[in-house]
Amino acid sequence: MQKIPYKIYLDEQEMPKAWYNLRADMKNKPAPLLNPETCQPMKAEELEGVFCKELVQQELDNDTKFFPIPEEILDFYKMYRPSPLVRAYCLEKKLGTPAKIYYKFEGNNTSGSHKLNSSIAQAYYAKKQGLKGVTTETGAGQWGTALSMACSYFDLDCKVYMVKVSYEQKPFRREVMRTYGATVTPSPSDTTNVGRQILKEHPGTTGSLGCAISEAVEAAVSSDGYRYVLGSVLNQVLLHQSVIGLETKAALDKYNITPDIIIGCAGGGSNLGGLIAPFMGEKLRGEKDYRIIAVEPASCPSLTRGKFAYDFCDTGKVCPLAKMYTLGCDFIPSANHAGGLRYHGMSSILSQLYDDGYMEAISVEQTKVFEAAEMFARVEGILPAPESSHAIRAAIDEALKCKETGEEKTIVFGLTGTGYFDMVAYEKYHDGKMDDYIPTDEELEKGFEKLPKID
Amino acid sequence: MQKIPYKIYLDEQEMPKAWYNLRADMKNKPAPLLNPETCQPMKAEELEGVFCKELVQQELDNDTKFFPIPEEILDFYKMYRPSPLVRAYCLEKKLGTPAKIYYKFEGNNTSGSHKLNSSIAQAYYAKKQGLKGVTTETGAGQWGTALSMACSYFDLDCKVYMVKVSYEQKPFRREVMRTYGATVTPSPSDTTNVGRQILKEHPGTTGSLGCAISEAVEAAVSSDGYRYVLGSVLNQVLLHQSVIGLETKAALDKYNITPDIIIGCAGGGSNLGGLIAPFMGEKLRGEKDYRIIAVEPASCPSLTRGKFAYDFCDTGKVCPLAKMYTLGCDFIPSANHAGGLRYHGMSSILSQLYDDGYMEAISVEQTKVFEAAEMFARVEGILPAPESSHAIRAAIDEALKCKETGEEKTIVFGLTGTGYFDMVAYEKYHDGKMDDYIPTDEELEKGFEKLPKID
Repeated sequence: MQKIPYKIYLDEQEMPKAWYNLRADMKNKPAPLLNPETCQPMKAEELEGVFCKELVQQELDNDTKFFPIPEEILDFYKMYRPSPLVRAYCLEKKLGTPAKIYYKFEGNNTSGSHKLNSSIAQAYYAKKQGLKGVTTETGAGQWGTALSMACSYFDLDCKVYMVKVSYEQKPFRREVMRTYGATVTPSPSDTTNVGRQILKEHPGTTGSLGCAISEAVEAAVSSDGYRYVLGSVLNQVLLHQSVIGLETKAALDKYNITPDIIIGCAGGGSNLGGLIAPFMGEKLRGEKDYRIIAVEPASCPSLTRGKFAYDFCDTGKVCPLAKMYTLGCDFIPSANHAGGLRYHGMSSILSQLYDDGYMEAISVEQTKVFEAAEMFARVEGILPAPESSHAIRAAIDEALKCKETGEEKTIVFGLTGTGYFDMVAYEKYHDGKMDDYIPTDEELEKGFEKLPKID
Repeated sequence: MQKIPYKIYLDEQEMPKAWYNLRADMKNKPAPLLNPETCQPMKAEELEGVFCKELVQQELDNDTKFFPIPEEILDFYKMYRPSPLVRAYCLEKKLGTPAKIYYKFEGNNTSGSHKLNSSIAQAYYAKKQGLKGVTTETGAGQWGTALSMACSYFDLDCKVYMVKVSYEQKPFRREVMRTYGATVTPSPSDTTNVGRQILKEHPGTTGSLGCAISEAVEAAVSSDGYRYVLGSVLNQVLLHQSVIGLETKAALDKYNITPDIIIGCAGGGSNLGGLIAPFMGEKLRGEKDYRIIAVEPASCPSLTRGKFAYDFCDTGKVCPLAKMYTLGCDFIPSANHAGGLRYHGMSSILSQLYDDGYMEAISVEQTKVFEAAEMFARVEGILPAPESSHAIRAAIDEALKCKETGEEKTIVFGLTGTGYFDMVAYEKYHDGKMDDYIPTDEELEKGFEKLPKID
């Protein structure tokens, strides 16, 4: 039998040339975005005030199966892609499991995560449309970094609203964005109406992703030649991120490997939706079956404990409504160090698939996540991001089950990024100062009560 | 003509199976280490109190051309190697140069640098010898991180003496080492005699690499089952690092590319010595000619302004004497943000080759280095370490010369690592607060006066 190498790389010519639109294979399409005033589906013209034209097309298109990746984006992809699919031989040995574990490592680029796959696409379409620049929000900072890099490449202005608590606790993240030429503003700020309003109502607030989104959208629509871009949740983002799954599948196919279980961490769904896309496609078409597992933090359990309902995407309620698993747009998760998994909602595509029973979801507590992260780092060498470590935790647990049953399952998980900017969290874990707050049912109920009454 | 891909990867089976010992092809061998008391060449037995047995053999062997890489080390290498040789298409375009620029990127691993290539070898031999653990020093933290990772992999104890100023300014680096299970002590400390002595003579000192080496050596020789390991300067380190050059050459050969100029940053010489090894071998054997350029910081110019003489490797003068280009073992460079290039001396091998005229050396000022770093980051996507950026600066300058002359030279440089832990330095650069201190001749003379009188 052919020995599987530690890392399976694709050649440049084996890289995907088109993004795969999972929606084309879904019987139950994701529910459309609604105009919050009329509660009618958002039309392209309405969305084009906020988003770039071509991205609006991608957002609304539930039918086209493949979108060719423009040459300029392919060129950029080649600078850091294909990303390796790694056989976790050392982790398997450490666990003493008969399971075969693979991870798709998306951290091998300066943004330190998979976010670059979509930021470069969004920057490209903004440039193509002749815009001056784009605005966005960032929580943990990975998306902001990825967008700064993409804008710097296409010579676009980039305004990032960074959740204030991250802005203050992660000065290095901020500095990386500045290195790539972005302007970084702590949110809420007094540069927008919505920011001033939030500051008035909640003086001293350290901000939230929902607030920062509201500010970034306002900054875009009130400036000439600017549009807003978002790093997760949206259909267009999952479309771009399908490159992760397509490469993963191509690498597995090269060695005739069929996974049994596919695992990804889930915040807004960008990584998970991208990783699983081609596999889920086969499942939807009835060609193959896979167990697909979304892993979320116990502190922000939108899939496992949220409601499937229309909700606002942002705290300031300036964005369209999306039908998704949500904890309510005012939900502020307790201090959890996986900043990228703190969003109150979830991609409409993934929400629909989960509701239709095509995937499972579990939630894990953060000390267990860091335990897995540290074990992984020590044997596999890569220092994982807290977000990614949710998937590591689940993969380890599945591999340990195989150890008990003796099953030689093949597990693939997404290692979305690196943890270089998360050492404060690691320090807390080492010092035994990390806690595992889980919201009570009563707390969640409060969020559900405020959900808009639609449907 | 075959189009050169953005990244040239080797297959696992194309990876080097043996390290190349450049000394075997040198007519003038590097001068031996001397016992500081007798001024006689150090014998193996003497060195074995400080270093692992097999590493002592590698240190002293000037004749064996190839050392097979043990299987266990090859397995570890496979986790992060082969590293990519990247064609800097975007940088070339940005510069508008006819030059063809390639860089060997060694930052794609958690240590963030090439240091892992030697740390895993040194940890392996320590484990094989049945030792409990190893001690070392670290300045910028890259070597300490790499050694922590290697020790964690082989389940060895790891004690790191970290230059106090770095310990305080880079808490995240410290935390990464803790994640891999290392003990990190700020140096000078009161845990060693030499540390206490230095603290007494210089209360409030923020330490230096020379002090930390003295402490780490003392900690090793005074503990049962411990040996000292070093991340640069030594012959054994250059031997292990030859894997960089061997892979680079294999990748270039695959596409029939012959470089004109090879550039590396130079602190103690580990990266430069490794990168140039097989090319310098061809040059020494008269088979090919290459321009080989060492780039050092203007603030610590051991090759360009130092003396070629026997000197102590450490401030505490507990280590053997080495013949090298040196600024004197008491030389403390001014605040420069390339912590990995602040050593007062230079590898004996490289010193000899430089003295024999086989390579050039230049020094560059740090604001010019950060200017190059930022330009590189924006177009090539990778956030480079300040150390590596010295090579970027020189490569850009050579490429700009080609632009003037119209020559299509092929330039290869070593991109040794990433700058995630160097954002304080980038911030200073962005804020215009970085200065370029260059030592005066008088200052250097003071260092030379104290050189031991040998030869």
